[in-house]
Amino acid sequence: MISKSAPIGVFDSGVGGLTVAREIMRQLPNEKVVYFGDTARVPYGNKSKETVTRYSRQIVRFLLSQGVKTIVIACNTASAYALDEIEKEVDIPVIGVVKPGAAVAVQATSNGKIGVIATEGTIGSKIYSRYINEIDPLASVVGKACPLFVPLVEEGLWQDPVTDEIAKRYLTELIDIGIDTLILGCTHYPLIRSTLGRIMGEGVTLVNPAYETARELKELLEREDLLNSEEAKLGDNKYRFFVSDAAEKFKGFANSIIKYGILSAKTIKIEEY
Amino acid sequence: MISKSAPIGVFDSGVGGLTVAREIMRQLPNEKVVYFGDTARVPYGNKSKETVTRYSRQIVRFLLSQGVKTIVIACNTASAYALDEIEKEVDIPVIGVVKPGAAVAVQATSNGKIGVIATEGTIGSKIYSRYINEIDPLASVVGKACPLFVPLVEEGLWQDPVTDEIAKRYLTELIDIGIDTLILGCTHYPLIRSTLGRIMGEGVTLVNPAYETARELKELLEREDLLNSEEAKLGDNKYRFFVSDAAEKFKGFANSIIKYGILSAKTIKIEEY
Repeated sequence: MISKSAPIGVFDSGVGGLTVAREIMRQLPNEKVVYFGDTARVPYGNKSKETVTRYSRQIVRFLLSQGVKTIVIACNTASAYALDEIEKEVDIPVIGVVKPGAAVAVQATSNGKIGVIATEGTIGSKIYSRYINEIDPLASVVGKACPLFVPLVEEGLWQDPVTDEIAKRYLTELIDIGIDTLILGCTHYPLIRSTLGRIMGEGVTLVNPAYETARELKELLEREDLLNSEEAKLGDNKYRFFVSDAAEKFKGFANSIIKYGILSAKTIKIEEY
Repeated sequence: MISKSAPIGVFDSGVGGLTVAREIMRQLPNEKVVYFGDTARVPYGNKSKETVTRYSRQIVRFLLSQGVKTIVIACNTASAYALDEIEKEVDIPVIGVVKPGAAVAVQATSNGKIGVIATEGTIGSKIYSRYINEIDPLASVVGKACPLFVPLVEEGLWQDPVTDEIAKRYLTELIDIGIDTLILGCTHYPLIRSTLGRIMGEGVTLVNPAYETARELKELLEREDLLNSEEAKLGDNKYRFFVSDAAEKFKGFANSIIKYGILSAKTIKIEEY
């Protein structure tokens, strides 16, 4: 029996998943959230399926120990590599960010040409193509790995000529192909959304899976009758943040994304889970 | 009793330490090398002292299990954070890349103004200042963290206008101060040496700790009577490479740095050491 008042577990390789947590907080204001960022082993985007799956399993065990009622894999690479396995292994609902993003891209496209930008891992897994073609076998999906975007975002160059130049190089191919829909397939990318939108031009719809994931989570909780009907009370520890390293640094970055004022993040030894 | 024919253990957070391994192979052609790159947990530069030290200890246990006669910490961040502790804990000689780089910078400077570029971790530790001021208390040391250099190098932009632009931003401060010596305090940086040299100008000496570390290692082995007097024979497995993830990808990058033709790299589970 899962309790409605239990928190939602959200995890990512680091800080990027906070863009997903932020959407969950906006769209589901009654819900408690336990967030885990794997800052000791970040990034996941250039690591193998085996390693990312092993890390994800440890994090899921940690979140289960926190009594969560559902788990959101707020990392595209981990969703691409580990969602299928984890879904089979746990008793509570688990959702990733890839499927919701894929579904809305299919709705958004007019010409059936969808671009995906993401880490090497996510692109290499071809997971977006798989989900998109399950819905629309005729849609054409072109993926482009953009390994420099995460470090550029983490360096704070959200609006910068260098980010512009790198984005132009990465996106030219997708512009030439004539995509009309672009999935921001890495949780860091919404933070450079305005740069990406400007370069792609007005005719291209940008899909932010963070937004769609929160929407799908809401539907899921309604369907399973798991929505928290009570507002959180003061002292409830509504939002709790855990990391595997460097909690202070995480707090700084987190506060630039989430405007709720993150007071503390706790470091845990994730290898022990 | 340590055997002269035992290999030298070299480790790094990933591929960067190969620039150190390459110098060891050049300067000590009789020596066998066991290299470990922690590709599952790379990078170290933005992680905490505690985490980097814990990871380094696991790697040292792995290298000891391979029967190494000495250990080279071929990673500036790990040298900065973990060398002192590891030296106390093992019975064989251990050297890092920081001390040799510091020593040669003191010899190289004329005006006593030394710049250090490195990861956030290395700069934050102030380890280069400490070693330099132990030798020359009057030397003035200015550190500058350059977090984008590692991803730019790994993306292959060794000669590129973007790398130029980012390098100019990072280095302006050091140029303004009038340093005459610049320590490349991260093992990736020698790969963009020509860019850095061009921007700093002819009056500035670039110090590559990889070169100095191999020289110091040679002196150490001579002093301790540990030099391998025999040439390696065919089938000796002279150079062996281990990683914690993505061995194939490692091989590709490694072969662009080391020209010996790395035939194989083996993946091990480093958390189990």
